[in-house]
Amino acid sequence: MKATGIVVEYNPFHNGHKLHLNKARELTQADVVIAVMSGSFVQRGEPAIIPKWERAKMALAAGVDMVIELPVSFATQHATIFAEEAVRILDAIHVDTLFFGSEHGVAEDFTFAAKKVVENEARFDEAIQLALVDKKTSYARAYTEAFKKLFGQNLLDITKPNNILGFHYALAAQNQNPSISLQTIPREHAGYHDEEANHDQIASATAIRKLILAGKLEEASHYLPASSIAILRNYEGPFLSWKDYWSFLQYRLIQAGSEELEGIRGVSEGIQNRMQQAATKAQNFSDFIELTKTKRYSNTRLQRTALQILLNARSQTSSPYIRILGMNKTGQQYLSLHKKNISLPIVTTVSKAPVGLLEEELRATNIYTLAKGLENYQAGDFHIPPILTL
Amino acid sequence: MKATGIVVEYNPFHNGHKLHLNKARELTQADVVIAVMSGSFVQRGEPAIIPKWERAKMALAAGVDMVIELPVSFATQHATIFAEEAVRILDAIHVDTLFFGSEHGVAEDFTFAAKKVVENEARFDEAIQLALVDKKTSYARAYTEAFKKLFGQNLLDITKPNNILGFHYALAAQNQNPSISLQTIPREHAGYHDEEANHDQIASATAIRKLILAGKLEEASHYLPASSIAILRNYEGPFLSWKDYWSFLQYRLIQAGSEELEGIRGVSEGIQNRMQQAATKAQNFSDFIELTKTKRYSNTRLQRTALQILLNARSQTSSPYIRILGMNKTGQQYLSLHKKNISLPIVTTVSKAPVGLLEEELRATNIYTLAKGLENYQAGDFHIPPILTL
Repeated sequence: MKATGIVVEYNPFHNGHKLHLNKARELTQADVVIAVMSGSFVQRGEPAIIPKWERAKMALAAGVDMVIELPVSFATQHATIFAEEAVRILDAIHVDTLFFGSEHGVAEDFTFAAKKVVENEARFDEAIQLALVDKKTSYARAYTEAFKKLFGQNLLDITKPNNILGFHYALAAQNQNPSISLQTIPREHAGYHDEEANHDQIASATAIRKLILAGKLEEASHYLPASSIAILRNYEGPFLSWKDYWSFLQYRLIQAGSEELEGIRGVSEGIQNRMQQAATKAQNFSDFIELTKTKRYSNTRLQRTALQILLNARSQTSSPYIRILGMNKTGQQYLSLHKKNISLPIVTTVSKAPVGLLEEELRATNIYTLAKGLENYQAGDFHIPPILTL
Repeated sequence: MKATGIVVEYNPFHNGHKLHLNKARELTQADVVIAVMSGSFVQRGEPAIIPKWERAKMALAAGVDMVIELPVSFATQHATIFAEEAVRILDAIHVDTLFFGSEHGVAEDFTFAAKKVVENEARFDEAIQLALVDKKTSYARAYTEAFKKLFGQNLLDITKPNNILGFHYALAAQNQNPSISLQTIPREHAGYHDEEANHDQIASATAIRKLILAGKLEEASHYLPASSIAILRNYEGPFLSWKDYWSFLQYRLIQAGSEELEGIRGVSEGIQNRMQQAATKAQNFSDFIELTKTKRYSNTRLQRTALQILLNARSQTSSPYIRILGMNKTGQQYLSLHKKNISLPIVTTVSKAPVGLLEEELRATNIYTLAKGLENYQAGDFHIPPILTL
């Protein structure tokens, strides 16, 4: 069976995702499409708008064959770790191709850049460190500058969000298993070019979340496939945002000694002190980010750090594993074929997983489900089994 | 000026308090009555029903001349520390008499018992430790047993809540300054005996809080002096209970590693593990206490420990100080007379206090005011000046 891997958040699953999924299957001639998806919290450092189980249902309903949870300790970090660990899972489960959308759209350039960075690692790292010396430059910017120094302006614009992710997928593949083939489609135009009639049915996940959070589910539905709409209509819980967790973060920042926050992932250079100050003044989360931000820290970086504080994420390294959120028959068949030959622990029943392996995930779910209205999902890691469909 | 000290919570100030206050002034022939009052959180390990500033207003309106805050690090602990530190403040401000209500009602017996315990300290401690050996007996019970061993059954029944406090006042006076005179009135009958007509105007603070929290302010008013009623009617904030802080406690217990909770005041023998387990299951605070309790830990002890966890109270020792919440002219006059001669730091303006001295208090206020509707009291330690009345 030819397997294609994709890395997703599906927050929520929309028409753009549907096109991307169809292209992945079609262009790579996949028999099985495996999605690695973030769970309760997503990469931009915020809670997912609906629980991971609902998002896994959406993925399966739209045709994904297997949904694997990207552990929260990787899913909520910067592109390097996010991509590295997503690729580690996809490689462990033996996908042939890694398929992704990108603004750039030419797979060879990603592979070329990744190869070259690996070959020139020392020089590249040095260039990054040099750019950081002034203590004002953000890491992302330093990275971009080092990249430009190596390749000039034209090879690949990694200031674009999907290019930088794609580059890190390529880098991870290069480091872990260069035999994985990479394939990409130009993302900005996906949908527009292919199905002209659909041009008003595509919106970004950010825009869609904004509509849903504003109570405009009807309007948001224009941009969602029927399968997602059905799942959203059946969903009885709340739509989640930082609003639902702000008071916990605020409490934690007020309650903790500054030194207790050291050692939390992403906390460095005394950023926790700014955050603790801001927490006593801010009335809501966006206030808080506004009060905390500096030149050196992008909003996303601050959000991500705030999230690590909310989750009390202290472990600097976590062990990877393959936690299956859902599969259809094809996915199950694929898993049966390969499961003897997979190097990472496979988790389908959490209570049977090695003790401690999912500790951070369970805690994240417990915190996620503290939001009012999520009672049915409390301790869901234990009582909600993987979703199996035909 | 003859000064009498009382130790109070005024949660809220009711008719029983009014009688106690009048008796204190009358029987001790006081020119000035000074109350040491707990602040945002009270001794039974819960939030005060209204902010400390409102309770200080009630005290002044009813005739107290000066209200001093018992620091939260003492106010929320067991009787020994609560009494010791309240007496330390009253002694530092040079009261002549310490006046308290008790079920027993005979001051000499308190003094006699305290003297004897001080004289036989080693033997008394040994008896306590012996009673604790079985690992099932609570500290309070072990204390009572040791007390009975020393005095027999009849001297003083320290299983009664006001007797045990009174005994600890006597013990503190004995240790700190035996020249402070002690005076007590039988508390159970205070009011009933004195003013027969009033017998239906007295209820316990617990009963009154229950009415207020149930929205029955009208009914509660039967048991409150007009001055308290007026202040309650003007009060625009919420009436507070553990209900308002349960989600923060739950979050903290879910979020923290077990080892992070060690070193919090009152956490011992792995009680935090029971609490962390219970937090993932309990739907509310009373559920939580029910799930956590054991033979060895009384509900009050558990509440108090839960509160220390909520407040992240780690310091095992705190420095005492005299923080004035309010005074009338008499109180101000008394303070002027004595202030050159007071051994503890006097705090009227928090921003001028030595750095760090009130750290725990400020944090407690910041946590207290996280409850919805308390926005006006946020950072109140800085922006609400002592209440000065005529």
